[in-house]
Amino acid sequence: MKKILALLLFAISFLTVRAEEPQYPLIGAQVFIEPGQTQQDIDHWFKVLEESGMTICRIRMFESYMKNESGNWDFTLFDTAFKAAERHGIKVYGTFFPETSKTDIGGWKAPKDEEQLAKFAEFIKQVTVHFKQYKSLYAWVLINEIGGGYQDNSFTRKLRKEWSKTNPTIDRNDKGYPVLVDLLDGKFRAYENTWVLNWIANEVRKYDQKVHLHENCHAIFSLVDEYNFTEWRPFLNSFGGSAHASWHFGFFDRQQYAMAMSANSEMIYSGAGRLPWIMTEISGGNTTYSGNIPLCPTAEEITQWLWTILATEGKGGIFWTLNPRASGIESGEWALLDFQHQPTDRVRAASEVISCAKKNSFVLSKSKKYDSGINILYIRESLFAEEQLNKDGKKMPPKETGSIMKDMLGYFEVLSQSGVTPNFKAIEEYDFSQDNFENQTIILADQIAIPQKYVEQLNHFVSKGGKLIVDGLTGFYDENVHNVMLTGFPLKSLFGGEIAEFKYNDTPFSYSMSGSKVTLPGYGWIGRIKSLATSSTLSTNDTEVTAIRNQFGKGKVIWIPTLIGYGARLFGYKPLAKFLYKECELNKQPFLFDKFQPLVSMKTLKTQDGYITVIFNKSKEVKKMMIKQLSNNFKSQILFANKKGFCKGSNLMISPEETVVINWSLK
Amino acid sequence: MKKILALLLFAISFLTVRAEEPQYPLIGAQVFIEPGQTQQDIDHWFKVLEESGMTICRIRMFESYMKNESGNWDFTLFDTAFKAAERHGIKVYGTFFPETSKTDIGGWKAPKDEEQLAKFAEFIKQVTVHFKQYKSLYAWVLINEIGGGYQDNSFTRKLRKEWSKTNPTIDRNDKGYPVLVDLLDGKFRAYENTWVLNWIANEVRKYDQKVHLHENCHAIFSLVDEYNFTEWRPFLNSFGGSAHASWHFGFFDRQQYAMAMSANSEMIYSGAGRLPWIMTEISGGNTTYSGNIPLCPTAEEITQWLWTILATEGKGGIFWTLNPRASGIESGEWALLDFQHQPTDRVRAASEVISCAKKNSFVLSKSKKYDSGINILYIRESLFAEEQLNKDGKKMPPKETGSIMKDMLGYFEVLSQSGVTPNFKAIEEYDFSQDNFENQTIILADQIAIPQKYVEQLNHFVSKGGKLIVDGLTGFYDENVHNVMLTGFPLKSLFGGEIAEFKYNDTPFSYSMSGSKVTLPGYGWIGRIKSLATSSTLSTNDTEVTAIRNQFGKGKVIWIPTLIGYGARLFGYKPLAKFLYKECELNKQPFLFDKFQPLVSMKTLKTQDGYITVIFNKSKEVKKMMIKQLSNNFKSQILFANKKGFCKGSNLMISPEETVVINWSLK
Amino acid sequence: MKKILALLLFAISFLTVRAEEPQYPLIGAQVFIEPGQTQQDIDHWFKVLEESGMTICRIRMFESYMKNESGNWDFTLFDTAFKAAERHGIKVYGTFFPETSKTDIGGWKAPKDEEQLAKFAEFIKQVTVHFKQYKSLYAWVLINEIGGGYQDNSFTRKLRKEWSKTNPTIDRNDKGYPVLVDLLDGKFRAYENTWVLNWIANEVRKYDQKVHLHENCHAIFSLVDEYNFTEWRPFLNSFGGSAHASWHFGFFDRQQYAMAMSANSEMIYSGAGRLPWIMTEISGGNTTYSGNIPLCPTAEEITQWLWTILATEGKGGIFWTLNPRASGIESGEWALLDFQHQPTDRVRAASEVISCAKKNSFVLSKSKKYDSGINILYIRESLFAEEQLNKDGKKMPPKETGSIMKDMLGYFEVLSQSGVTPNFKAIEEYDFSQDNFENQTIILADQIAIPQKYVEQLNHFVSKGGKLIVDGLTGFYDENVHNVMLTGFPLKSLFGGEIAEFKYNDTPFSYSMSGSKVTLPGYGWIGRIKSLATSSTLSTNDTEVTAIRNQFGKGKVIWIPTLIGYGARLFGYKPLAKFLYKECELNKQPFLFDKFQPLVSMKTLKTQDGYITVIFNKSKEVKKMMIKQLSNNFKSQILFANKKGFCKGSNLMISPEETVVINWSLK
Repeated sequence: MKKILALLLFAISFLTVRAEEPQYPLIGAQVFIEPGQTQQDIDHWFKVLEESGMTICRIRMFESYMKNESGNWDFTLFDTAFKAAERHGIKVYGTFFPETSKTDIGGWKAPKDEEQLAKFAEFIKQVTVHFKQYKSLYAWVLINEIGGGYQDNSFTRKLRKEWSKTNPTIDRNDKGYPVLVDLLDGKFRAYENTWVLNWIANEVRKYDQKVHLHENCHAIFSLVDEYNFTEWRPFLNSFGGSAHASWHFGFFDRQQYAMAMSANSEMIYSGAGRLPWIMTEISGGNTTYSGNIPLCPTAEEITQWLWTILATEGKGGIFWTLNPRASGIESGEWALLDFQHQPTDRVRAASEVISCAKKNSFVLSKSKKYDSGINILYIRESLFAEEQLNKDGKKMPPKETGSIMKDMLGYFEVLSQSGVTPNFKAIEEYDFSQDNFENQTIILADQIAIPQKYVEQLNHFVSKGGKLIVDGLTGFYDENVHNVMLTGFPLKSLFGGEIAEFKYNDTPFSYSMSGSKVTLPGYGWIGRIKSLATSSTLSTNDTEVTAIRNQFGKGKVIWIPTLIGYGARLFGYKPLAKFLYKECELNKQPFLFDKFQPLVSMKTLKTQDGYITVIFNKSKEVKKMMIKQLSNNFKSQILFANKKGFCKGSNLMISPEETVVINWSLK
Repeated sequence: MKKILALLLFAISFLTVRAEEPQYPLIGAQVFIEPGQTQQDIDHWFKVLEESGMTICRIRMFESYMKNESGNWDFTLFDTAFKAAERHGIKVYGTFFPETSKTDIGGWKAPKDEEQLAKFAEFIKQVTVHFKQYKSLYAWVLINEIGGGYQDNSFTRKLRKEWSKTNPTIDRNDKGYPVLVDLLDGKFRAYENTWVLNWIANEVRKYDQKVHLHENCHAIFSLVDEYNFTEWRPFLNSFGGSAHASWHFGFFDRQQYAMAMSANSEMIYSGAGRLPWIMTEISGGNTTYSGNIPLCPTAEEITQWLWTILATEGKGGIFWTLNPRASGIESGEWALLDFQHQPTDRVRAASEVISCAKKNSFVLSKSKKYDSGINILYIRESLFAEEQLNKDGKKMPPKETGSIMKDMLGYFEVLSQSGVTPNFKAIEEYDFSQDNFENQTIILADQIAIPQKYVEQLNHFVSKGGKLIVDGLTGFYDENVHNVMLTGFPLKSLFGGEIAEFKYNDTPFSYSMSGSKVTLPGYGWIGRIKSLATSSTLSTNDTEVTAIRNQFGKGKVIWIPTLIGYGARLFGYKPLAKFLYKECELNKQPFLFDKFQPLVSMKTLKTQDGYITVIFNKSKEVKKMMIKQLSNNFKSQILFANKKGFCKGSNLMISPEETVVINWSLK
Repeated sequence: MKKILALLLFAISFLTVRAEEPQYPLIGAQVFIEPGQTQQDIDHWFKVLEESGMTICRIRMFESYMKNESGNWDFTLFDTAFKAAERHGIKVYGTFFPETSKTDIGGWKAPKDEEQLAKFAEFIKQVTVHFKQYKSLYAWVLINEIGGGYQDNSFTRKLRKEWSKTNPTIDRNDKGYPVLVDLLDGKFRAYENTWVLNWIANEVRKYDQKVHLHENCHAIFSLVDEYNFTEWRPFLNSFGGSAHASWHFGFFDRQQYAMAMSANSEMIYSGAGRLPWIMTEISGGNTTYSGNIPLCPTAEEITQWLWTILATEGKGGIFWTLNPRASGIESGEWALLDFQHQPTDRVRAASEVISCAKKNSFVLSKSKKYDSGINILYIRESLFAEEQLNKDGKKMPPKETGSIMKDMLGYFEVLSQSGVTPNFKAIEEYDFSQDNFENQTIILADQIAIPQKYVEQLNHFVSKGGKLIVDGLTGFYDENVHNVMLTGFPLKSLFGGEIAEFKYNDTPFSYSMSGSKVTLPGYGWIGRIKSLATSSTLSTNDTEVTAIRNQFGKGKVIWIPTLIGYGARLFGYKPLAKFLYKECELNKQPFLFDKFQPLVSMKTLKTQDGYITVIFNKSKEVKKMMIKQLSNNFKSQILFANKKGFCKGSNLMISPEETVVINWSLK
């Protein structure tokens, strides 16, 4: 029933989408509207957008600023903005921002009680009905940055109570063992997120069947387990995210921010499925007192971030913000414009990207993300489990919350610096329905809890020719935090063995991989494997087997039960790059770096008859390298370079902090 | 009305001050009186005070120890002390210490409810009436260390409710912008402090019109924003403070404690206005389990601290404590005497200072702090704002609470090590009512929030010949945490421009100052200036203006919008010393070090026909230097030196940790 | 009355102890029983125990798993285990584990209310009555890891109220001084621990007068002040403890874990008095998400820990666990067996120890811990005081909680590395009733609070020939946190002087000890001594006496009032080793290292006509050394060596991480 409803909604949403879409690329900025601003101010900002080549903007629709002194609705301030947008040809993404406390800079994520829910419904009605008059209205952002902000209140308690009826606490698992730690908290948070978004979408649809609906997730490296993206697809028209270095990139240092943006983009791209996506919030300027750390993006970073998004098939992005808010926390911060409302070098950087993207819109807008066939998958039960098991608050890597993500990111970073961007997906976003997975690789990095339902899918994947690379404590628990390694390992025949023991090792250690000269640094636990006859030994530790390769059906599994990705982050990426080059058959990729390039990364788009590669140099040196192409059918042409970037045939020169975009068309 | 009342109280307080004052210098110690002590013990302590040359003491008047078993008042224990004080010619500062929990080592700062207030009134009455009989009674300390200890209770809530009537929350500012973060919490705390002190003073005056009234502030580098000193002047007869390295000098390392004492003294001196001041609490001895850090002052530090106070025109100071308390936390700690109640080397150090000060009382007691004309000003709204904006608790310099103070202290330390002690004042303590400010300098270091009322005063100051040095985010907000840089910068014509952007920079950076060979290290944010024609460029960053000099009326402004003072603390004082030497025209100072002297500092008093300079050497080397005098009219004579200090003409030799006092009289 | 009752219980307990005891050594493991396990699983585990030579096991008796669906008692699961134990000749220690929350991995320590107490009584009755049928039942562990887990609840409040009648708050001490900080919180916690254990023991005895009663303390370096071991002796039949590196050895680094195990063992051995003891929990395997730190013991560590216990006259120990629990936190962790339920190298290590101990059971089981006569004593009032004085939470060594313990451990470590294991005792566990203490040494390391009652005992000890070594702030307070150094030092004639001052010193400092070439590093405070004529100076600091030696009666006191033990841990053990060699007359010990051996330690047992020495090498080098024997009467024979250990005469060679056991029998 629920499924039918979802499909129905999905169908409706496609039927009713507004015809008039903004032009590619959808790049713009948040126009921060608040009382005190003059009509001139507001017009000026839209004029700046227009002059910068931007086509979209976002406006936070403060309920607090929509009431006059007698308490009646008064949309004057925002009318001014929507009219200015029309005058300057800018399409608006309006964000519902129901009344909250003055110092709440992000807004609430779920109502606190039924009364607040009803008030929100009325607000949505008023705003939806009023603003549909404007041609400048393009989309509603359902709520700002869903997730991560739950509080124990009557609304949440009631919703959970209902939800619990179909998601009860389980006393014993199928084998009869007690279930002592469950993952219901996390599952419910994900459910509530979807519920709230769906409810808002339904409210909007009561009054406007055509408007575009959008949502921005945030802090994705911490909150992604709450984001059941596939469940959002039926009621959203596009996906989005907030990706702020100051708030969200704590797992990365500054040289890695472009990499963080890339991983963030991949996760949203995958979540969106066939729907389009944009990066709804990109940091526009300096932070002083807000954010987790003080920071000001450079113009070069702006360029890197925009091209990263476009190279992940993003339709564009919206800077937070064009103009800064004027009061309170965040005032005078985050903006693309300076205090005199004039464009900064960051605006100029954005304009250059826009200009290039427009010029090459014909090829770019129809390009698809090139699918390398390499997939780093996360299983939300693993992330929930990590959180639950760290509830005592004792922080100690590699057990602390975030360790799984860091292990996954290690692989992402290694491959990106080899010139190949892997997919970064929730397991349910991967299409297991195929019959042939040759040339497909799945990486399960420290996925500590694997529900039974995925075991079959993984079996199917490998048996039909897929390659599976497994590390860390992957498969330690099932979805009930039951230790299946102990009571019957369901992945035994797939992996080609089972773990005898995991032993934590507090001194550095490494793996000499047989059949190659690679010595991989490990981290954390060493798994001792009892292997089956189907497997061959990849690495040993004295007399113990520590890594194996297994043939399963038509496919293969590589199993190295230690934190290889995390280890690469700590002790160096190069050995893992070498290992994956062979195991992932990178030589079959259409485009590739000639060798591992520290701090340089590449993303690839597939055009109709060729490719576009986007290269970022985050090192401090001018880099000269060869872009290896599999066939020799393509000739290079630089579409964009913001320094001295230069490409002759396959030979690239790229300056520090530079972004270079190359179009490879048939010779 | 309030003002008239205040003036009236002020007038009364002057009329009724007790005639008989203790002799200069007012140096003494806390005699800690508690049950269990014998008459002999108590007499012995006063005898030690007398023998050490001390003339004053302080006694904590524990309400808890003034009731007999039937609950009636019983002052016996304290009578013993006051009588002993009389016998030994010691004047007593009694501290009201109303009943509190046993483990409360500092006492409460405001009553918790009306009942406790009434009980306190009765206590004041009993004590005031009873002890006025003693000639040894000199002063009441209204309450121990007002400020910093507020709790949410019925008294505070009621007082705030009343106060809110005249200090309401503001929804929109004059320009129509919303006010999202206000500073009312801080303003109220300051109000409550004054209210409580004023109330106590009024209670005392009901029973004793002559007794001297005193108060000691504490933790001044953190709490000064709560101290509206100018409002205290009407009802106090003298100001004071607690200055404990273990509790209060956390922004300093040990070599800087004399510097911390100097800044602390300057702030109280300025707050007191024309009233006298003493340092009410100076650490007397070792801490083990109390204090923030374990610490024992050396005899040399005792000497440094006393001379610092006297050189800031302080009348003296009181050690905490003479004898230690015997029970609980603090027992056996903090004392000048050893466990056998015998004087330590710290007492001998104090006695030497006393002896010298007495011997030279004629010249010293009439000396005034020499006003260098250089004023580091703090604006309490800036400090309140810093606190509010850090409420989320994320600590990250230079945004964390305390950063403003550290930036200010950087200037204080640089100048002190050049041989000149600047004033350290609240802006309202500075006299803007003059017509000529030539030879006056004001330094606004990172004063992030400037109320409109001060803008006019600063305009007046510069236009009439003053020099203004501005750094950091000074002027970022107004008193409503509204970002005026964005919506019309009121200091534009004064500063000679406006900020286009502040950009946080996470790598070290510096400023090459034009017209000098100085390269100043900056810290934190780099401000890009859009300058007016009235200004000239002082420094650029590529094509951007990063510092300017502006002519405004008869005066000048130097604007370097980065954290110069904080940067000096982190990356070295010397460049700033060189810069300020020129900009503050230090060569016009009557006395000066020949060059910047790391870890050596000087304070100057003006005698009737000459000067006294006090020099401290906190370095580990014997220093030889020249004391430059502007005119050559004065001859030097050493009044005090506790090591091998030696001065021939202008040539000084000073040992590590030594204090040297030089009298400069007309040749 | 209470005493008589205690004696009575004591008598009863001896009379009624079950005849049939497990064979020496009592080494086994926790068989973790939970639903889901099959009969085959369970039988297999007991079979493994039997095959490994283990004779005992422990079973957590979960009340939660003893009810069927209708809520009636159902012991089936545990019956299976007890029967399997019988089949395989394993004796069971059952742990009462009353119902608690699913995620409570340690269980509660005291009931929350009367209802829970009553429910517990019923549970004890049911379990006691039912399981006494099994011959495999040997002992009940009264509750898992008493102590450290108190919460404010109605049961505790009620118990405290009653207790307070005889333990009231004291307002004034004997001298009339106020008591401001008391130690009642700590004393009550110790009382409640004893009360709960005693209550459980009484409940058991209602139904089973013969069963053995046991209790395991835990986290001993933090909680020992709560453990009034002497009060437990009347109702326990044996003592025990949990000693987990991951949870409990935070004061030690990994190379010191064997040392930690040794100190832990000594404390339990001393607490047990004449009763036997075993180490109830020894870590069996790897930790991932549980524990304070991830850790996996090596086989060598298993060997070290077992021999440490046996060498402290422990009867054996129980690993936590044999098989891991399968669900929730801890699932798949801590186990001796691997995930296929097969023995690991840690089991093999244990089996080797068991095999050797069995083979030499005749000599080993009758051996007594050799009493070196050197006693490190802790006074629980000192530990309570340290806790109270750190209640403000400001952490700063050496005042932070744990500093006293670290100072004590410094001595323990130095002596152990000299080849001599000192006793580690609560002061009340030391037998002061003798008349001659020649060749006895007591070390009081930083015992900051000494109750008056112990002063007389210490006087008696020294006057009758004992040697007392005193350091740190020992004797600073009495039991009411009153500073007796200030108001009449009761230890003056004993120590040969009194402290004039303690001064904290924040730079490294040391003591040149007269009459030897030793320069001891100090730490923290330097005590300046006013010495009596009976004493001679040991060390001076300029003109001040900083350490003395005092003759008192027939004995001597060495007083070095600084943190010598802590200093040794920070700055090197060797000087203290040299000093103690002389002062403790180590040359009179029957067995000794030829010189201080860093990271090597020795423990000694007295056999009927000789000795057994157990040596551990935690260094990374093969060590060659001489074992010095006092008389030359004994010849060496290696009983155990798990590497290339070798002993010819007195010459020992021992490999890194090796344990060597030598039997010294009469030539």
